Amino acid sequence: MTTDPIALTADLIRCETVSPAEGGALQLLEARLAAAGFTCTRVDRNGTPNLFARWGTRGPGPCFGFNGHTDVVPVGNRDDWSFDPFCGELRDGWLLGRGATDMKSGVAAFVAAAIDFVTETAPEGAIALAITGDEEGEATDGTIALLDWMERQGERMDHCLVGEPTSPEELGDMMKIGRRGSMTAYVTAEGVQGHSAYPHRANNPVPALARLVALWSNHVLDDGTEHFDASTLAVTGFETGNEANNVIPAKARAMANIRFNDAHDSASLCRWLEDTAAAETARSGVKFHFDYQISGESFLTPPGPLSDLVADAVEAETGRRPALSTSGGTSDARFVKDHCPVVEFGLVGKTMHQVDERVEAAQITALKAIYARILAQYFSGAIGAD
Amino acid sequence: MTTDPIALTADLIRCETVSPAEGGALQLLEARLAAAGFTCTRVDRNGTPNLFARWGTRGPGPCFGFNGHTDVVPVGNRDDWSFDPFCGELRDGWLLGRGATDMKSGVAAFVAAAIDFVTETAPEGAIALAITGDEEGEATDGTIALLDWMERQGERMDHCLVGEPTSPEELGDMMKIGRRGSMTAYVTAEGVQGHSAYPHRANNPVPALARLVALWSNHVLDDGTEHFDASTLAVTGFETGNEANNVIPAKARAMANIRFNDAHDSASLCRWLEDTAAAETARSGVKFHFDYQISGESFLTPPGPLSDLVADAVEAETGRRPALSTSGGTSDARFVKDHCPVVEFGLVGKTMHQVDERVEAAQITALKAIYARILAQYFSGAIGAD
Repeated sequence: MTTDPIALTADLIRCETVSPAEGGALQLLEARLAAAGFTCTRVDRNGTPNLFARWGTRGPGPCFGFNGHTDVVPVGNRDDWSFDPFCGELRDGWLLGRGATDMKSGVAAFVAAAIDFVTETAPEGAIALAITGDEEGEATDGTIALLDWMERQGERMDHCLVGEPTSPEELGDMMKIGRRGSMTAYVTAEGVQGHSAYPHRANNPVPALARLVALWSNHVLDDGTEHFDASTLAVTGFETGNEANNVIPAKARAMANIRFNDAHDSASLCRWLEDTAAAETARSGVKFHFDYQISGESFLTPPGPLSDLVADAVEAETGRRPALSTSGGTSDARFVKDHCPVVEFGLVGKTMHQVDERVEAAQITALKAIYARILAQYFSGAIGAD
Repeated sequence: MTTDPIALTADLIRCETVSPAEGGALQLLEARLAAAGFTCTRVDRNGTPNLFARWGTRGPGPCFGFNGHTDVVPVGNRDDWSFDPFCGELRDGWLLGRGATDMKSGVAAFVAAAIDFVTETAPEGAIALAITGDEEGEATDGTIALLDWMERQGERMDHCLVGEPTSPEELGDMMKIGRRGSMTAYVTAEGVQGHSAYPHRANNPVPALARLVALWSNHVLDDGTEHFDASTLAVTGFETGNEANNVIPAKARAMANIRFNDAHDSASLCRWLEDTAAAETARSGVKFHFDYQISGESFLTPPGPLSDLVADAVEAETGRRPALSTSGGTSDARFVKDHCPVVEFGLVGKTMHQVDERVEAAQITALKAIYARILAQYFSGAIGAD
């Protein structure tokens, strides 16, 4: 009897798991995996629920890993939904609910594929599932906590597939072999307050910060690299907090979000920002202070055995050879890449994070088949004992 | 018996007249002026108290006018004061309280000078006092209401002196013969909201507005004119209201306060701002919407008989010849100038609008003497029957 990934996705949707609520989702998976012979360990940290499950022994055979998350983003205004966001109902071939695409279906597909594969095949080696309850939130105690714990325990993955939605239009049209890095610079400009009738007695930080923002925004960071789109910078905020038209404020602040490819790293970008600010200080006397949030460096798993394995399986099941992309936002692959080669492949993500999130049920079955084929090929030695 | 301007100032300080509260101040002045033979009329409009007082007949002799206000700015935090802001106490030669410099002392000095002058001299002609209870607030129903009413009633001033504090360091070192204009432009930039990872699908209004702010701030409006300092532009606010680093906001707004001399008027400045915005729209597609607050156009009473009269009196009493200036913020002279030649002369304003506002009592006596000398010279035909 094979595991039905649609029913499993529906069961997961019915668990209310807005980050970082566990909502019963990891408990459900733990029960199903344990029954199939997986060794399961809850690796919770600072209130964030995480589940590690391994089938097989820790070595020396190869270990294939899957990574995913059961938490979901908030539903927003429920009145905007045309169905209960946690109903998990199948209607006209569509499975409905928050997490239907991002990514309870992906988790259900790899869990179902793994259970069936080990039950039917009993491969030489191991399968590791690292499933977090906090990918959509701060993500500081999610996949990172799982990887920290695995390292301490001597657990490993030789290769990893993250089951995030990656297909823009049709199942199979794209996979991810890396991601751009992401960082936000928070800059505060400090001048001298004063009366707008006597600007020479003040030092207005607003024009100084505006010149910097204009300079940054006009600058072309690069035109893209071999595997990456061009880096981008977006100044998303600029505030003085001053509503008095006759008062020159002492301070102004802005934030710039940068998505960067492998032509840069966060350190080189911080240096660039600070060098431009120093030049502005030399011009105007306005001082700048920077704080940074580094969400992740860019990374790339160069095209090779792992991407070939996944692309071959996708093509065999869908007739489409996926494009190898590094586009989009961040994912937990940015943490996994420090431990082993990692790629991402999953469903069409069109309704992710939106009202009335839904997925064609047939896609979930197809995704399970792709993951099953990947496992079969992997344990038949497709990649070799690297 | 002459009128004591220090005691009158103290009496006025004891009236709590934070704009637009009358606080008994105009009632007090009306009683004193009526007793001296002035025809007094309260010209209140929309709750704003104003007092018009005339001695003498409406024509054909010359009419000298004084303009001033009895309202004061708020005291702020009373705990920051070292005395009761409405005490009106004389201590070590200083008269203490809110309005001591701006400008209950000025009003008391010209009221005392006028009462004594008409009592002792009975000049040929008229003296008109236009005293408002709202100069520090919106000023929409203050001196404007008085001037409107005077025009309807056939009342006039041939020349006018505004008794605002004008001396930066020592009594007599400066008088005002005009003022720069003042306006504020409120600009809203409208682009297209989006995700900071996909800036090409959005149209970020922040860089567009930053480029405009930088352009405006870098632009030299002029280098000053014969009687005016250079015009200045200060961008005092820039807001997106967006705290999400991954969201490109749809809108951003800024405000720019412009103090402008007679090389410009508000209409030419609006055109310039909108032309620069149109060029930015052509570049980026971001649209701009402007709202304006025009506080006043620049104006000048060119050096001549009136400024000579005042300067001569100041020099005779203080030994200092006042500089003819157009610096500083706005005053109600900007309304009076549409009706007759107007200049401004008054005390040292160092503590105006500040905590522990105070004035040297001797300055009030000296100011009364200057105003008395102006009246004497004026009615002896110093300016002529223009």
